[in-house]
Amino acid sequence: MTQLELARQGEISDAMRAVAKAEGVPEDEIRRRIEAGRLVIPFNARRRCKAVCGIGEGLTVKVNANIGTSHDYADADAEIRKLQAAVDAGADTVMDLSTGGDITAIRERILDESPVSLGTVPIYQAAVAAVQSRGSLRSMTAADMLDGVRAHCEQGVDFITVHCGVNRDVVKTALDCERVCGVVSRGGSFLVDWITHHQQENPLYEQFDELLAMARELDVTLSLGDGLRPGALADAFDRAQIHELNVLAELSARAQEAGAQVIVEGPGHVPLNQVASQVQLQKSLCKGAPFYVLGPIVTDVAPGYDHITSAIGGALAAAAGADFLCYVTPTEHLGLPEPRHVREGVLAARIAAHAADVARGLPGAADWDRRMSEYRRQRNWPGQIDCAMDPRRAAALRDARKSSDAEVCSMCGEYCVFKVLNERAR
Amino acid sequence: MTQLELARQGEISDAMRAVAKAEGVPEDEIRRRIEAGRLVIPFNARRRCKAVCGIGEGLTVKVNANIGTSHDYADADAEIRKLQAAVDAGADTVMDLSTGGDITAIRERILDESPVSLGTVPIYQAAVAAVQSRGSLRSMTAADMLDGVRAHCEQGVDFITVHCGVNRDVVKTALDCERVCGVVSRGGSFLVDWITHHQQENPLYEQFDELLAMARELDVTLSLGDGLRPGALADAFDRAQIHELNVLAELSARAQEAGAQVIVEGPGHVPLNQVASQVQLQKSLCKGAPFYVLGPIVTDVAPGYDHITSAIGGALAAAAGADFLCYVTPTEHLGLPEPRHVREGVLAARIAAHAADVARGLPGAADWDRRMSEYRRQRNWPGQIDCAMDPRRAAALRDARKSSDAEVCSMCGEYCVFKVLNERAR
Repeated sequence: MTQLELARQGEISDAMRAVAKAEGVPEDEIRRRIEAGRLVIPFNARRRCKAVCGIGEGLTVKVNANIGTSHDYADADAEIRKLQAAVDAGADTVMDLSTGGDITAIRERILDESPVSLGTVPIYQAAVAAVQSRGSLRSMTAADMLDGVRAHCEQGVDFITVHCGVNRDVVKTALDCERVCGVVSRGGSFLVDWITHHQQENPLYEQFDELLAMARELDVTLSLGDGLRPGALADAFDRAQIHELNVLAELSARAQEAGAQVIVEGPGHVPLNQVASQVQLQKSLCKGAPFYVLGPIVTDVAPGYDHITSAIGGALAAAAGADFLCYVTPTEHLGLPEPRHVREGVLAARIAAHAADVARGLPGAADWDRRMSEYRRQRNWPGQIDCAMDPRRAAALRDARKSSDAEVCSMCGEYCVFKVLNERAR
Repeated sequence: MTQLELARQGEISDAMRAVAKAEGVPEDEIRRRIEAGRLVIPFNARRRCKAVCGIGEGLTVKVNANIGTSHDYADADAEIRKLQAAVDAGADTVMDLSTGGDITAIRERILDESPVSLGTVPIYQAAVAAVQSRGSLRSMTAADMLDGVRAHCEQGVDFITVHCGVNRDVVKTALDCERVCGVVSRGGSFLVDWITHHQQENPLYEQFDELLAMARELDVTLSLGDGLRPGALADAFDRAQIHELNVLAELSARAQEAGAQVIVEGPGHVPLNQVASQVQLQKSLCKGAPFYVLGPIVTDVAPGYDHITSAIGGALAAAAGADFLCYVTPTEHLGLPEPRHVREGVLAARIAAHAADVARGLPGAADWDRRMSEYRRQRNWPGQIDCAMDPRRAAALRDARKSSDAEVCSMCGEYCVFKVLNERAR
């Protein structure tokens, strides 16, 4: 039985208990939110993952890190290093988006090594296999797509992105929209191409009930992908995006009805002034289903700094109610990230998540900030370093620019405000 | 005559013409906004600065970079390298906050070399001189403070931070507030200590008319410092902060009446959900006077990443109406920055500023994003690099993770969405 089915029966599972404990929320409250479809615990029944993670209403905002090989960089060891970098930096979940090398074997290794929930996008592997065996993406069959999903579920993946919302109607709308960047979701682009070429319905939409059966069997959480998310500020909030979102809202309701855990994915490239509205719309249409945003990035012009453009958008989205932030690394739009980029991406997204936790008034969230502030007033440097989100980096930067006076830092030296006003600091 | 006095007489100065041209705004509109106290052009009559910069209503959001020596790092050459890093990264103005070495000589070099408007905080030098000559901050006299301001004005500084709002009444309120971090403005802490020790009024408040006369003489823009800005999320929006802001509102009106250009400074450490309200309050109290925010940073817990915490807060503040962002570097709270930190800080703040320009619907702002998006669709890599906010970094990251296929990047390779859907991209 899925966590949703258990919740409906009034049962409190071990996973629910673990989430309740980690978040400081009463166990029955966790159960109630799962029952309402507002909270998920991605946790495959075959899975060996150690850290169970709840995503949704009233919980801390979670951060996902994408890793995975590509055609150009297909080294499994490098991906394990990225996995470690992500987990070490505090990622709550990881997605393996491998498209290069022996994809199944790489996933097996990542599943073995990952202490956190693991997600995938099964259609990537189905597409790569079609290209390798029959020379084209379009040669992918409906069975390839469904079998791919089944294989990932059976291997133990905790959550999967499925672009079920890219149906023929939605594609018609998309082709009618004058977008600057068209379709920028990889899975979305495969399906738009496949659907328009074959003039057939999206198998992941048409056979959604079968997909639900697979998801339920091992309690794999469905992440309904937004294949038509805007890939340029200019494309945000257009008819294609909203048509698809409406379909995803319908499918998320069907998933919940069937007892499958489900989250909904969102953009993408969004102007800052639209971020909150994007979240409000999703939350309303999807009746509070957890919202998983990719970024969003708030300007297109800063490749090399998209961990920052997405920290801005992610903080705003999460403050407005998004539950789950997919990180973006500094190499987004430029190349496959290395471990150090993974680390930077996770930290930037965690800053966004925590700033939003504080903004939302999540109980206890601001205590961390208060503790740090007290260490600052006390000029307690070990305390400040220890309390930092990334103690290693904080220590390294302080050490690189030491002051001759260990009580202060080298910016203000003896003019440190806390020294000037020591007795009056409170 | 100051730009404000000229504007009142209906005159359009060369500086107004330059700003109008740079911003694509009609000249008389610039004049009108200066007349209304909603726009300033910091530009000392004795100054040799090449790039005139307008700050205020309806203009692009501007970015300031703080540089300057400290007791521990008092090398003038290093500061020149930081100046170059700031300007190269696109800072609109620079502030020299030196407190180490031969402060006057360092400022002279920076004034010589800086192509952009230069700001200072004269009380820093007065305080350092008092400590050096008489052994304590408290030995500073009222004349030291005023003479310090005069010396900076006469040397050609374009704008100066003066903490005139920290008057005795405000200090009383501050001492009554149970703050976690007390006073974190350096100038603010000097004055709070001085006022409480001497039981005398703040000379910069008491002799505000004299200050205005100095500012007017060479048209030095006054930046009214927020000596009681919150230095911890927990301290934001307290009585001390708001009492001082109210005094600053009164002083900014007096400055405008006297014909002096004036901007008002703001926080600081602010929870994300309060950032817009902070801006709205300032704009209302100060009748639209340009608002210059330091950050704001939206969490206290990420030392080492405060360029990111402040990019989040700065983007939100600017979208809500702030006009001028003071950058924060990754070394904030840890030590004096190096040139590479200056570069990172400026770029993060510029991202925030541009995201806000787009969000505010500033005419033309989104064109840059659209151009980048079109290059992406076309897989025009030289175009993308050239269009990037930091072309050097974008190129370096792309080069470090090359694809075997020069048409795409190493993340998606042949599965590049723009390749899959080449013909259908529009």
